[in-house]
Amino acid sequence: MKKIVVIPGDGIGKEVIPATLHILQGLDLPFEYVYAEAGDECFEKYGTPLPEETLELCKESDAILFGAVGETAADVIVKLRQELDLFANVRPAKSMRGVKCLYDNVDLVVVRENTECLYKGYEFDVGDSAVAMRVITRKGCERIVKFAFEFAKREGRKKVTALHKANVLKKTCGLFKRTFYEIARNYDIEANDYYIDAGCLYLVTKPWIFDVIVTTNLFGDIVSDLTAGLVGGLGLAPSANIGERYALFEPVHGSAPDIAGKGIANPTATILSACMMLRHLGFSEVAEKIEKALKKVIAEGKTTPDLGGNLKTMEFAEEVLKACREV
Amino acid sequence: MKKIVVIPGDGIGKEVIPATLHILQGLDLPFEYVYAEAGDECFEKYGTPLPEETLELCKESDAILFGAVGETAADVIVKLRQELDLFANVRPAKSMRGVKCLYDNVDLVVVRENTECLYKGYEFDVGDSAVAMRVITRKGCERIVKFAFEFAKREGRKKVTALHKANVLKKTCGLFKRTFYEIARNYDIEANDYYIDAGCLYLVTKPWIFDVIVTTNLFGDIVSDLTAGLVGGLGLAPSANIGERYALFEPVHGSAPDIAGKGIANPTATILSACMMLRHLGFSEVAEKIEKALKKVIAEGKTTPDLGGNLKTMEFAEEVLKACREV
Ligand SMILES: CC(C)[C@H](C(=O)O)[C@@H](O)C(=O)O
Ligand SMILES: CC(C)[C@H](C(=O)O)[C@@H](O)C(=O)O
Repeated sequence: MKKIVVIPGDGIGKEVIPATLHILQGLDLPFEYVYAEAGDECFEKYGTPLPEETLELCKESDAILFGAVGETAADVIVKLRQELDLFANVRPAKSMRGVKCLYDNVDLVVVRENTECLYKGYEFDVGDSAVAMRVITRKGCERIVKFAFEFAKREGRKKVTALHKANVLKKTCGLFKRTFYEIARNYDIEANDYYIDAGCLYLVTKPWIFDVIVTTNLFGDIVSDLTAGLVGGLGLAPSANIGERYALFEPVHGSAPDIAGKGIANPTATILSACMMLRHLGFSEVAEKIEKALKKVIAEGKTTPDLGGNLKTMEFAEEVLKACREV
Repeated sequence: MKKIVVIPGDGIGKEVIPATLHILQGLDLPFEYVYAEAGDECFEKYGTPLPEETLELCKESDAILFGAVGETAADVIVKLRQELDLFANVRPAKSMRGVKCLYDNVDLVVVRENTECLYKGYEFDVGDSAVAMRVITRKGCERIVKFAFEFAKREGRKKVTALHKANVLKKTCGLFKRTFYEIARNYDIEANDYYIDAGCLYLVTKPWIFDVIVTTNLFGDIVSDLTAGLVGGLGLAPSANIGERYALFEPVHGSAPDIAGKGIANPTATILSACMMLRHLGFSEVAEKIEKALKKVIAEGKTTPDLGGNLKTMEFAEEVLKACREV
């Protein structure tokens, strides 16, 4: 029995999570689901967006399935990443049939360092100015770069590209770039690098040159939204936050207050995140089955309104579950 | 008589600058051109990529026309921006007929703060780690935001959008966002903001929602390469670096060692930068004439190889000059 801690959060988090669980629970997995609270509503109720109990539950979990939180996002998800030391944020971007997008041949994965850089929280007022510290450690660089190459190896990917700004940030990005090439030597995988600005230009003009991207925290934040945009938007972008001991899976999108409560949110990103969770827990065949079903349903035009269809969130999930039973 | 300091720099800088001057000199402007050295070759010759004489010449100029420099770029262009206090980096991105690009309806301008943020150069080794300081001052925010709104007003633009990451960088980006809305109140122009990650997603999926973008230095670096990508690449992206006293105009692209020396570089970005210079110096009609000629030549397919044509850099410039005489 695996213990899955489920944190729906706010807004559409409370719609895409039930839809995803509808599929998981329909497939008879040996999972125990334990609900935990976090986010804006939680803050209103308890005065904290991330209660100690939630953190404790996470620390007893085999995996965490996370929806989305509102205004308090930074105090919840960034804190969870730090507290659980989820140092690798894995964000695949893949074109999908039936989804209108800029390029139909994108298949890349962003591996984002998830604990340091400008996310450390070291920020100070100085007179009427302010300063933030960008912290890059050798250990942090080593483990994220190693993770990216191991990931590439395991997934049969051919190239790892580092994105950085070492021409300006000579010490911090310099350390990242140096470590990248040191570790690359141990792998029989192509390694190259671009400045982050040039990288974003190439992502827009020739995304097919990328395979696995590895980069520091804030650049990874930007790049993974950009790549989600290339393949049709955040409605489809899943992610895995991986550490030595814990793992958290979440859609890249936020709580989308503008459409929350209408039952029309697209749960695809969360369903795909759950598939990453299934693979992480050793249920690769189930993950594959759900992904196949999902692709089939979307290719047939049975989609939520954002993709041009007229299904409600739960109806879409039901279609995917039905397709799972057929594939 | 206006004094224009010309810094060709390295690589294709030494090709796109002569091409641009070919046009300017063919139009009988009351300009005196003074050449100055900077960049990698300059470093090899004198042991410094930015000699004191170059800086002194810049300080006596009415405008600086800059090509591109190689490896020493950060030590030349970043230093010039700081030393001459060129606080506003203006980078228009506009779709052009005859240029293959993702969107044919992009017409936006990135106004990038150009002197602070992670470009301050405050970086330190700490054990086997490294730290960089992101410095955001109230004065820096005020002047760049005011610049963006004044620019929007002057150019008849309808909206100014701030990009930041105030959910994570609560103090530094918080200061920028707060100042943005304080200043926005004084203008009868729509003002809104997005997180930088969401902003990059929207730039990729619906760039037409943007008009003028104002943002901090490093975000502006990334965003302006991204928007250049949207409209066909760096070959077309001009920029103006504006301060209280000085102004420097340069293509967004680098020295492109891969194609340098072949005489095939596209000088469009530099020609458009020169047009920004002409406007700045009060020669708007000449600028308009060159831009019209440039668009005509490109729309007719008379282009350098990067845009599908077979003209050499200088042949292209000659075509533009000929067209100037006709329009
Ligand atoms: C909500 C925010 C703090 C978060 C981040 O910046 O990491 C989000 O944008 C993401 O990418 O997961
Ligand atoms: C060369 C580099 C230092 C520079 C920058 O980062 O500002 C360049 O990318 C630019 O955008 O002008």
